Amino acid sequence: MTYTRMTPAEAASLIHDQDKLALSGFTPNGNPKAVFRELSRRAVREHESGRPFAVGIYTGASSCQSVEGDMANAHAIAFRAPFSTNKDFRTHTNLGEVDYEDMHLGHMSERMRHGFYGEFDWAILEVSGIDEGPDECRAYLTTAGGIATTAARLAKRVILELNTFHNPNARLLHDTYEPGDNGSGRGPMNVIRPYDRLGENYISIDPKKIVGVVECCIPEEARAFKAVDEFTAAIGNNLAEFLVADLKAGRIPPQFLPIQSGVGATGNAVLAALGTHPGIPRFNVYSEVVQDAAIDWMLKGKIIDASATAMTVTNECLQRVYDNMDYLSQHLTIRQCEVANSPEVIRRLGVIALNTALECDIYGNENSSHVCGSALMNGIGGSCDYERNGYISVFTTPSVAKGGKISAIVPMCCHVDSTEHDVDVIVTEQGVADLRGKGPVRRAHEIIEHCAHPDYRPLLRDYLQHVAPVGHEPQSMTAALAFHDTFLRKGDMRLTNFAEYLK
Amino acid sequence: MTYTRMTPAEAASLIHDQDKLALSGFTPNGNPKAVFRELSRRAVREHESGRPFAVGIYTGASSCQSVEGDMANAHAIAFRAPFSTNKDFRTHTNLGEVDYEDMHLGHMSERMRHGFYGEFDWAILEVSGIDEGPDECRAYLTTAGGIATTAARLAKRVILELNTFHNPNARLLHDTYEPGDNGSGRGPMNVIRPYDRLGENYISIDPKKIVGVVECCIPEEARAFKAVDEFTAAIGNNLAEFLVADLKAGRIPPQFLPIQSGVGATGNAVLAALGTHPGIPRFNVYSEVVQDAAIDWMLKGKIIDASATAMTVTNECLQRVYDNMDYLSQHLTIRQCEVANSPEVIRRLGVIALNTALECDIYGNENSSHVCGSALMNGIGGSCDYERNGYISVFTTPSVAKGGKISAIVPMCCHVDSTEHDVDVIVTEQGVADLRGKGPVRRAHEIIEHCAHPDYRPLLRDYLQHVAPVGHEPQSMTAALAFHDTFLRKGDMRLTNFAEYLK
Repeated sequence: MTYTRMTPAEAASLIHDQDKLALSGFTPNGNPKAVFRELSRRAVREHESGRPFAVGIYTGASSCQSVEGDMANAHAIAFRAPFSTNKDFRTHTNLGEVDYEDMHLGHMSERMRHGFYGEFDWAILEVSGIDEGPDECRAYLTTAGGIATTAARLAKRVILELNTFHNPNARLLHDTYEPGDNGSGRGPMNVIRPYDRLGENYISIDPKKIVGVVECCIPEEARAFKAVDEFTAAIGNNLAEFLVADLKAGRIPPQFLPIQSGVGATGNAVLAALGTHPGIPRFNVYSEVVQDAAIDWMLKGKIIDASATAMTVTNECLQRVYDNMDYLSQHLTIRQCEVANSPEVIRRLGVIALNTALECDIYGNENSSHVCGSALMNGIGGSCDYERNGYISVFTTPSVAKGGKISAIVPMCCHVDSTEHDVDVIVTEQGVADLRGKGPVRRAHEIIEHCAHPDYRPLLRDYLQHVAPVGHEPQSMTAALAFHDTFLRKGDMRLTNFAEYLK
Repeated sequence: MTYTRMTPAEAASLIHDQDKLALSGFTPNGNPKAVFRELSRRAVREHESGRPFAVGIYTGASSCQSVEGDMANAHAIAFRAPFSTNKDFRTHTNLGEVDYEDMHLGHMSERMRHGFYGEFDWAILEVSGIDEGPDECRAYLTTAGGIATTAARLAKRVILELNTFHNPNARLLHDTYEPGDNGSGRGPMNVIRPYDRLGENYISIDPKKIVGVVECCIPEEARAFKAVDEFTAAIGNNLAEFLVADLKAGRIPPQFLPIQSGVGATGNAVLAALGTHPGIPRFNVYSEVVQDAAIDWMLKGKIIDASATAMTVTNECLQRVYDNMDYLSQHLTIRQCEVANSPEVIRRLGVIALNTALECDIYGNENSSHVCGSALMNGIGGSCDYERNGYISVFTTPSVAKGGKISAIVPMCCHVDSTEHDVDVIVTEQGVADLRGKGPVRRAHEIIEHCAHPDYRPLLRDYLQHVAPVGHEPQSMTAALAFHDTFLRKGDMRLTNFAEYLK
């Protein structure tokens, strides 16, 4: 049989104000795009006609401009979870327009199953193929796993966006396992090696729920990250040297351990450093995403097997993947994020967790999401799934931003995403702070002397030695956030004068 | 054969300055006591003779006065991990004398295996019995699991403290499984139901490592917690009502889910409320500890099966346990904390996590360890192992402390242990804030109106509406910690005047 075909506009017209939409995709890849391009246009028309129109958008991770950027610009997002990196979304969220719950990616499907978000009106999935059976629909995903399996099962109605931009062989990469409910006596997730698969390469959907199929051919909206520069190269090299030293000291086993590498330019620089360092053996990846660099290292054989929730790759790189499916389908697994970000699997495998910080404080607390406390930059994504459960939890950041006006090392984080208990190592272009087995004050010395930019070391030493009172983790309740306040008022953290803050 | 017997003083005399000691025990129970009573005396003598003497103390959790209180008073602790609740330890740590790493309990054995703490000179284990074989020593633990299995395997030398205060049948409660190394292809921890056991009821030790056996008869140093009072009873009742409502709404499955309940008076009050509420079915416990209340509910049948790392019970209650071993050994399992606090098992079972906060901020971040930023109150213990991985993560706290001078609800936590992403529900005697599926500003309204003490609501509303700028999570970089600074300067958070803080 053939399911109902409809245009993107027809699909968009079926969605009601305040509906809850659960989507395929993870990062800008694998999201439904055709329906959303129409949906944001429709929202504008509705608003022009004086009618309210906003929906809840639930995804695996961040999404693409067509989903959350255009929808935010159209004032059409009532609620959003769990993650965003989109500039337009950020703008509208910081204006207080969007009710945004920043949530661990590995928790999302579980929380949906628990009913914490209520009922889902729609699942909208981008697919590379459909087996249109009368009793079972088998839907094949494209470049991402995300929450698609759970979304399809929970949602009352399903729209499939059949995007012929993707190679139908994309299905060979997928493993769409969904664990049972808590309390049901469910068993373990038996991923013992990064390549182990648990489920199927399709999502099974009740055809009665499938409202329509939207055919389209739309490229992914992913963009390339900035090239490796002097700072990210130094960070990558410092990190590689640290890991080699731990390997030599026996703190990492000789066969090495799987790597998680965060999204972005630093993630690519880190993989470049690990890929080229002669002291790092061939390794596996167990991560949220594979970026261009990871695919390249797979094709060169330096990365053996990789597991991720998405290919966050450029369209050029995606073509390389599709051209090498015979090899890659044997070595690359795309999972639902509940498995990719599973604390169980991450802990069992002993993943080396590499994430990016916005700022770290002198005691090792980390902020990856908010600027000066209030303003959202990005959500936490899956960083906390990995830092908490990884074998070694590393955060990387350049020591300064905005030409030195912002220090990434501060007395107290203005917002905490990963606590001191979850940060083992901080790496900047200045060096490496190894925080393991050290109390707060020893950590502070390690971070100030090895990671802070020299411009900021005297200020940070002054804070620790003179401004903050004695205690286990000395903090001044008036001066702890002086760096941030000085930046807001004077535009440069280097102008911090602690005397202004002491009462 | 019979292993060498020695006096506590002889054992203590073998330990060198800067040695690293890994101990049995979890909370004040199951720690070696005889050797430490001599060791702290020895430290005093060494110091009087002008010789340095301090050791590293590694345990499963907090320990008893003989271990960390007396040792801290003797200035004999060089390093300590992962947890403490001891008053004397706190005093000396806040003076900067102790290098204390506050670490998740569920991470401790793993980090020891990884070599993050270097080599362990000694394991000192309290045991209730020893099979003194020539090729294998089987050591039977007493009231706690903790890190004993890993400690015994890693340490170069072992001292066994055979404490005849304990019933030899204590062994029937234990399950001493230790997982393999990361990177070895190790499998899952197959705890599918709270009563599942994985290992043995003894620790197997190479007899060549056993330096001596110290025989003693010393009661546990645990004390009773404060009785349930008006505030803790109201907290317990509010929590029970919340869980019943979630059960009715289908957000908790009808068979209910295992409960984790933190240590202390509130933990007992919460269990009392759950035990007596007619809407709560018989339930299981998967937790760090069982306190007196849990044992009582087990004997009454309201708690079916319980799994914990320790019996943190009074000596009277411990006698009840030993008197009811036929029943309890079938229903109570004492585990190594690596299993009891395992993210894998906690997530799989869907544990309802109930922990105690020192303060929460209006966005749902939580502080359980530090007063006014700097001063250690307690470590985090295992709270974060459960909050992050539990099915629902609840934090309880009275809304005020010190007769109203301290608000437990503040604009910004002065120290963050559990982030907003890990706190689903806050319960005070005032009511319940359900934070699930809400962005920061909606959470703030929920917390202020339902959980804050009425004395503090106007101040908190003022902060949110007028003091903090716009943004995703509005915070003023000068006034965020005004409550804490006002308390330090004026002795009462109610005297906070935000105008003093605005620049």
